[in-house]
Amino acid sequence: MANLIEGNAIIGQSGGPTAVINQSLVGVVQGLRAHGAGRRGHPIKRILGMCHGVRGLTKGELIDLTEVDNDRLERLAATPSAGLGSTRDKPDHPYCTRIFEACARHEIRYFFYIGGNDSSDTCRIVNELSNHAGHELRCFHVPKTVDNDLVGSDHTPGFPSAARFVAKACMADFLDNISLPGIKINVVMGRHAGFLTAASALARRADRFEGSTDGPQLIYVPEAPFDTERFVQDVAQVYDAKGRCHLVVSEGISDANGNSIGAQLIKSGQVDSHGNVQLSGSGALGDALSDLLKQKLTPAGGKPPRVRADTFGYIQRCWPDTSPVDVAEARGVGRFAAELAIAGDLDGTVAIERVSPIGGPQPYAAQFRRLDLNVVAAKTRHMPHDFLEGHNNVSQAFLDYCRPLVGPLPMFERF
Amino acid sequence: MANLIEGNAIIGQSGGPTAVINQSLVGVVQGLRAHGAGRRGHPIKRILGMCHGVRGLTKGELIDLTEVDNDRLERLAATPSAGLGSTRDKPDHPYCTRIFEACARHEIRYFFYIGGNDSSDTCRIVNELSNHAGHELRCFHVPKTVDNDLVGSDHTPGFPSAARFVAKACMADFLDNISLPGIKINVVMGRHAGFLTAASALARRADRFEGSTDGPQLIYVPEAPFDTERFVQDVAQVYDAKGRCHLVVSEGISDANGNSIGAQLIKSGQVDSHGNVQLSGSGALGDALSDLLKQKLTPAGGKPPRVRADTFGYIQRCWPDTSPVDVAEARGVGRFAAELAIAGDLDGTVAIERVSPIGGPQPYAAQFRRLDLNVVAAKTRHMPHDFLEGHNNVSQAFLDYCRPLVGPLPMFERF
Repeated sequence: MANLIEGNAIIGQSGGPTAVINQSLVGVVQGLRAHGAGRRGHPIKRILGMCHGVRGLTKGELIDLTEVDNDRLERLAATPSAGLGSTRDKPDHPYCTRIFEACARHEIRYFFYIGGNDSSDTCRIVNELSNHAGHELRCFHVPKTVDNDLVGSDHTPGFPSAARFVAKACMADFLDNISLPGIKINVVMGRHAGFLTAASALARRADRFEGSTDGPQLIYVPEAPFDTERFVQDVAQVYDAKGRCHLVVSEGISDANGNSIGAQLIKSGQVDSHGNVQLSGSGALGDALSDLLKQKLTPAGGKPPRVRADTFGYIQRCWPDTSPVDVAEARGVGRFAAELAIAGDLDGTVAIERVSPIGGPQPYAAQFRRLDLNVVAAKTRHMPHDFLEGHNNVSQAFLDYCRPLVGPLPMFERF
Repeated sequence: MANLIEGNAIIGQSGGPTAVINQSLVGVVQGLRAHGAGRRGHPIKRILGMCHGVRGLTKGELIDLTEVDNDRLERLAATPSAGLGSTRDKPDHPYCTRIFEACARHEIRYFFYIGGNDSSDTCRIVNELSNHAGHELRCFHVPKTVDNDLVGSDHTPGFPSAARFVAKACMADFLDNISLPGIKINVVMGRHAGFLTAASALARRADRFEGSTDGPQLIYVPEAPFDTERFVQDVAQVYDAKGRCHLVVSEGISDANGNSIGAQLIKSGQVDSHGNVQLSGSGALGDALSDLLKQKLTPAGGKPPRVRADTFGYIQRCWPDTSPVDVAEARGVGRFAAELAIAGDLDGTVAIERVSPIGGPQPYAAQFRRLDLNVVAAKTRHMPHDFLEGHNNVSQAFLDYCRPLVGPLPMFERF
């Protein structure tokens, strides 16, 4: 504790919640308490929580976590969504100044912010402002996002559990699709990164059902430019061959110029207008693709094919059947951040580094590392090229990368 | 076996699949095999399966289940969706004649059909036609539907597991809604019956979080006429009081004249057209309600509220986290149907009768009963009046009815 400045610690949660974000919150609290924070004589006096992230902090909406019963913390850790409340606020410089002023007012010297790349950027700016103003603040970013789009990490806490949901949902929904054949579109979250959509490929169990090609047969991620005509041809080809087609589409699919397909389809009049182009918390993209396929694949004088679209929606990020690896790592990154603070580090983010080779017989293993805030702040990671196969599939390398993260999947039987 | 006619047995699955429909298939097979069907000298020679229900039967697409390994059957039982394939065909008289002819061709004397009220009606018609033609066919309907809309039963296999999904999804999604406040609409299956939508009320854990009203705060089922203006007022009231609103809507909501709200909203131009009025496998109803609320609740010169809509979609009926009661009963109704056949019954359907009082300390208990096919055939059960509370809630009586069916739900923690 050589280097510890006296004051309070505060923890906040930001951005879209996940099924394991409270694991990280509890990890920070337990990590600080394990080293005596909150006990008489320790330089870290109180452990506070921000209600709804920096928005609550600036309004003085704080709760004291210093002495919350450990059993209650454990129950909270196993609860999905952000227990402290979250916020979508992306602070600019004046807002960051208010944050830093609130920190000074509440004698906060240790600032932990659990979130994605925007949260990391907030940490970075608050840290700089505080340092310039002479109020030493130690800022730690704790990674979290189902989108898996933070640079510098093998993957991000929250992603494995969401990927587990997507894989299980596609396993079950594919069986629904072969039971009542038709064209089935599933729209998956992930913003401009395709990792979560790609995880649907884990639903395929070709190892088990030899000779059968399991769904999803087509996977569209934002990293592969989406061509509407080619999409229709892809679906027609599978549908003609099998009498059914199970496909998964990322909410963030874009054309070669980076323009959102959802927004284009909805605005173009090629399908009927849906009134808005909001792509999250809405079935608009799935329904637009569904309308498109019905139009293009109806034979002259014939009936349109049976096309259904589901948008997995918010339950992707809050479904309480978590991945064991994710639970352990989400707790671990919180605890590691606490230990960075206790060890006297001034700032940083926590990265997950895989130490086992991808693929092959070695069991999965990872370790945590401190990285500078500016390594991750406000940057977006995309799927690397070798995780893609053509424009509508993912590679074996991606499957090898993703499989150990999601945990054991059910084994289904088929005739 | 005094009364057993010589021939083959056949089993089919029909309508929307469920997470436990294969339990019933395996229940019939095991029930018949337990009494020696398929063994040398037994009057029931072979146990066949129809591929995609009566559609496959009329085309001769059958598979032989007589000697399928029991371990494989057990794995299939734990697999969601219809393992034999399903069909949406609702046979008319000429189609039923083709079914009966196929039965005669394949020496079928025992006909088991797992499905909803349409399937029960198919059983009834095929039975009558066969009897008139002098080909004795013994027809048994095995109940299945997530809609819970079969008359004569306390509830229907498939409903408890789907209700479990809806309750868990709403528990987790409500936490998402308080974490990032706004108006959240969830659209739930169930056609013209509100049971599955009503199950969302199990997400409320007022017993645990005293003093807090947990979501969903508003529940709209088809049995309570839906008034669009009153809906907007309901939401505004909750939203004004809490700054958020979590609500659940049945896909089948209708006005006082029985007209579908989804179709009206989409067609009326009150919200933008969506190109079609298909309400299943589409986000149209949720998006239409979302657009409506944004329009009506935007303050003059102000920003629209944050409104999001998710349509739970097909994963409601295929999610593999089943209810233990449902698993046991779905297997049981299949087995009971087999035993009716073995005991010499000529036809019938299987009803689930609850023998424990609803509410109170007694553990849940149920038994199976044979009912005449015409008791359930082509009839739809709705939520009884005492399961409703006002126009936007369900009663304690419904909660007492539903709770033991879905199995233990997770206990979440909140600050």
